[in-house]
Amino acid sequence: MAEIADLTAAVREFSRERDWEQFHDPKSLVLALVGEVGELAELFQWVPAADAVERFAAPDRRARAAEEMADVLVYLVRLADVLGVDLGEAARTKLADSHRRFPADDVHGVAPDKP
Amino acid sequence: MAEIADLTAAVREFSRERDWEQFHDPKSLVLALVGEVGELAELFQWVPAADAVERFAAPDRRARAAEEMADVLVYLVRLADVLGVDLGEAARTKLADSHRRFPADDVHGVAPDKP
Amino acid sequence: MAEIADLTAAVREFSRERDWEQFHDPKSLVLALVGEVGELAELFQWVPAADAVERFAAPDRRARAAEEMADVLVYLVRLADVLGVDLGEAARTKLADSHRRFPADDVHGVAPDKP
Amino acid sequence: MAEIADLTAAVREFSRERDWEQFHDPKSLVLALVGEVGELAELFQWVPAADAVERFAAPDRRARAAEEMADVLVYLVRLADVLGVDLGEAARTKLADSHRRFPADDVHGVAPDKP
Repeated sequence: MAEIADLTAAVREFSRERDWEQFHDPKSLVLALVGEVGELAELFQWVPAADAVERFAAPDRRARAAEEMADVLVYLVRLADVLGVDLGEAARTKLADSHRRFPADDVHGVAPDKP
Repeated sequence: MAEIADLTAAVREFSRERDWEQFHDPKSLVLALVGEVGELAELFQWVPAADAVERFAAPDRRARAAEEMADVLVYLVRLADVLGVDLGEAARTKLADSHRRFPADDVHGVAPDKP
Repeated sequence: MAEIADLTAAVREFSRERDWEQFHDPKSLVLALVGEVGELAELFQWVPAADAVERFAAPDRRARAAEEMADVLVYLVRLADVLGVDLGEAARTKLADSHRRFPADDVHGVAPDKP
Repeated sequence: MAEIADLTAAVREFSRERDWEQFHDPKSLVLALVGEVGELAELFQWVPAADAVERFAAPDRRARAAEEMADVLVYLVRLADVLGVDLGEAARTKLADSHRRFPADDVHGVAPDKP
């Protein structure tokens, strides 16, 4: 269960070898994350919603999506590392919270409204 | 090394139990991801860049950041699942590519320019 | 044709009266913009794509969307002001460029592919 | 004071001439907006916060930023048009609300905390 920690360590080492840690303050990393999320959004913007899964089953499209999602994950683990956050643990905690907040019987088939 | 796959399976099961899979087309999931990235950005927006790490060392702030990052990760693994993408593998591939694209000696201390 | 300039001046004055100009460096303003775009995205995330226009014809939903779009515009004009960019002029220039890049006969009914 | 309405009409006509209205459902437009915000974020990500204004005073950098901000505005007015929202009016209403919510004497020099 050390996959996210391993990835975090690899990205940290990558940054250190290039002396790029100086650029990795939290605000800059969030902006970099936003940049990658933007590239991910562009892949899907004009695809009809109902066709998206099928269109991205094509190997080249799937590879493009995978690459953008990877970029998002890399900046996310880097940000967590800089902030001293255990991202895998945070995700498990969040999911446990969601189980409590959204009992399956109460919200069955109902999208949670955003405040 | 199955942590991301385990998280993916847990989020899938959570969605299935609530009959929420119907809402999880790729475009909707990217929008949900954007929503969480927006909440993450808001935490940092008015914090001076140089103070961000120190300010988020406070337990309540760190917990808030951890929660928003967890939300981003949860939607990211869900999107990867829906698209049939192995996110952990994609991140390792991407990092290997980055090692090739950015030889440490060439880019030492120089932030990569965006096109 | 001074509407954007008038809005820009009003937001600048609002910021000056509160001594908030100190917070409005470009990176912070982009993060604030991202936060508002995230709130806009959340409004639409679980709405079926084909129903979105109709659902947001309801006055309260339309007002929520209008408010989030207004927030995006306010931070956008503030950012342009801080950078010394004439946003209205930039939009007109961009639209003229798009007329040249996308001749109507060439792209009729075809969504432009993103690189 | 018809500048935003004029821009809205120009973007609508541009879309109609290319038969692109079919792609402009709200979710797709929000994703397109996110893509442009991502490009804007990338311009600033590795620039030290304190140097951003000066660095973007260089004509080519300013032009790049102007172009990305223009793209954001174009998709924003297009989204407002599709939703039947008067964006200029919404911004003026929002600013009037902000005057009430944040009395200058109460918040002088204090960045508003996000909930």
